[in-house]
Amino acid sequence: VRAAMAGWARAVRGLLLDVSGVLYDSGADGGVPIAGSVEAVRRIKASGLKLRFCTNETQATRENFVKKLRGMGFDISVSEVTAPAPAACHILKERGLRPHLLVHDDLMPEFAEMDKTNPNCVVLGDAAENFTYANLNEAFRVLIGMDKPVLISLGRGRYYKETDGLKLDVGAYMKALEYACDVQAEVVGKPSKRFFESALAEMGVPPEQAIMIGDDIVNDVGGAQRCGMRALQVRTGKYRPSDEKHPDVKPDAYVNNLAEAVDIILRQL
Amino acid sequence: VRAAMAGWARAVRGLLLDVSGVLYDSGADGGVPIAGSVEAVRRIKASGLKLRFCTNETQATRENFVKKLRGMGFDISVSEVTAPAPAACHILKERGLRPHLLVHDDLMPEFAEMDKTNPNCVVLGDAAENFTYANLNEAFRVLIGMDKPVLISLGRGRYYKETDGLKLDVGAYMKALEYACDVQAEVVGKPSKRFFESALAEMGVPPEQAIMIGDDIVNDVGGAQRCGMRALQVRTGKYRPSDEKHPDVKPDAYVNNLAEAVDIILRQL
Repeated sequence: VRAAMAGWARAVRGLLLDVSGVLYDSGADGGVPIAGSVEAVRRIKASGLKLRFCTNETQATRENFVKKLRGMGFDISVSEVTAPAPAACHILKERGLRPHLLVHDDLMPEFAEMDKTNPNCVVLGDAAENFTYANLNEAFRVLIGMDKPVLISLGRGRYYKETDGLKLDVGAYMKALEYACDVQAEVVGKPSKRFFESALAEMGVPPEQAIMIGDDIVNDVGGAQRCGMRALQVRTGKYRPSDEKHPDVKPDAYVNNLAEAVDIILRQL
Repeated sequence: VRAAMAGWARAVRGLLLDVSGVLYDSGADGGVPIAGSVEAVRRIKASGLKLRFCTNETQATRENFVKKLRGMGFDISVSEVTAPAPAACHILKERGLRPHLLVHDDLMPEFAEMDKTNPNCVVLGDAAENFTYANLNEAFRVLIGMDKPVLISLGRGRYYKETDGLKLDVGAYMKALEYACDVQAEVVGKPSKRFFESALAEMGVPPEQAIMIGDDIVNDVGGAQRCGMRALQVRTGKYRPSDEKHPDVKPDAYVNNLAEAVDIILRQL
């Protein structure tokens, strides 16, 4: 791994970190930090490298998400987090869109300032228990009533694991609405190029001087590489050995976990 | 229209009729017959032509569906109806499949004799209120737990209209599960070739001597034509003027309604 990274890690000026599966594992009591990750974040900050947390989390506001992570000991603040809901708000304002929201109750405050009267688009997040038959029909009716339906999806994940089992993720519901309305959703969040570019801009680092570290071979690694970044896959979180034979995406290197990645990167500087 | 059909309608020996949108319009009180359709069915039977009702209805057993139609005055019996649930049962038996069912409560009796223990496939119908977050996650978990997920979908409709508004149809939920599990559903019902072929076999008429009459340009007309049948689209039910500019499917003729179709066909004989 060190040899693989020897050539380029020296030029690095900034790191983008995925959160779930890299910093912590989600679970019944809110989750537990992954061994060595709290210290790894601290070491990145002490090193002078720029740092940005880049997450597809849409079940909580950034405030509550950060509060949970601080409770686990992470040195993280709201201003360091790039997340889909604020990115979507930016797009809505830019295009004069008034959203009909099908999102998690706990995400609603992120859209508090948006005009939601007479909606002209649908914003879909991981709504979890809000994915009811009635709510899906309502979102569908808003879309099909438009001349040109606009569907904005906060991510395109297929499923995720919680302590009580696997759950369908926002991408599955996105596909249902896409098919029913014969429309293609605009995805905000990883692996969208624009989303990574915002994170880089907020960090003030060009893609060739940044490394993405994530557990998702497609959304973290593939997405970041398409933006011109290097990307490492950690063997924690949703990583599976079969990822190492992925037909399309090959990380610049594998690391066992965030602590190992940071260790190697900092030695190169 | 008569001119368009003059050549071939003479050779006709059997008619396949779609039900919803051709015989009746569904609605709050169970629906109302389309003007002239009760009499048209009676005329077909009196003519000696073979007749089969070919429906994608999955919100009721054939027994209850037929009871509703008889209540409107239609001369129809269970043995004359080809519907997705019995066709699916046939496939399940043939392949030794034990279904996990995500269907409407009122359809459950159709599967009463199927072994549902330790399921090795998922059967998806228009489950309506049963399309809950919990039920969708459960169906997903059954699928993702299989080496090679088998998803059987009773139709692939996008949406339909009820008196209280548009509703997502089974096809939308099929797409959600297909995406989440990276699998392709097997569709039972129109426009599946096998489904039309069963209806023809039950009627004992080869495709070139049969006419399908339906309101759905893709599932009725396109599906029947791919089986070698002629197909008429009625301008009732879900018919929309834009159907007449469909990029792929062109009916052999348009008729205003079932009564007109039967009138023209019987004059040719």
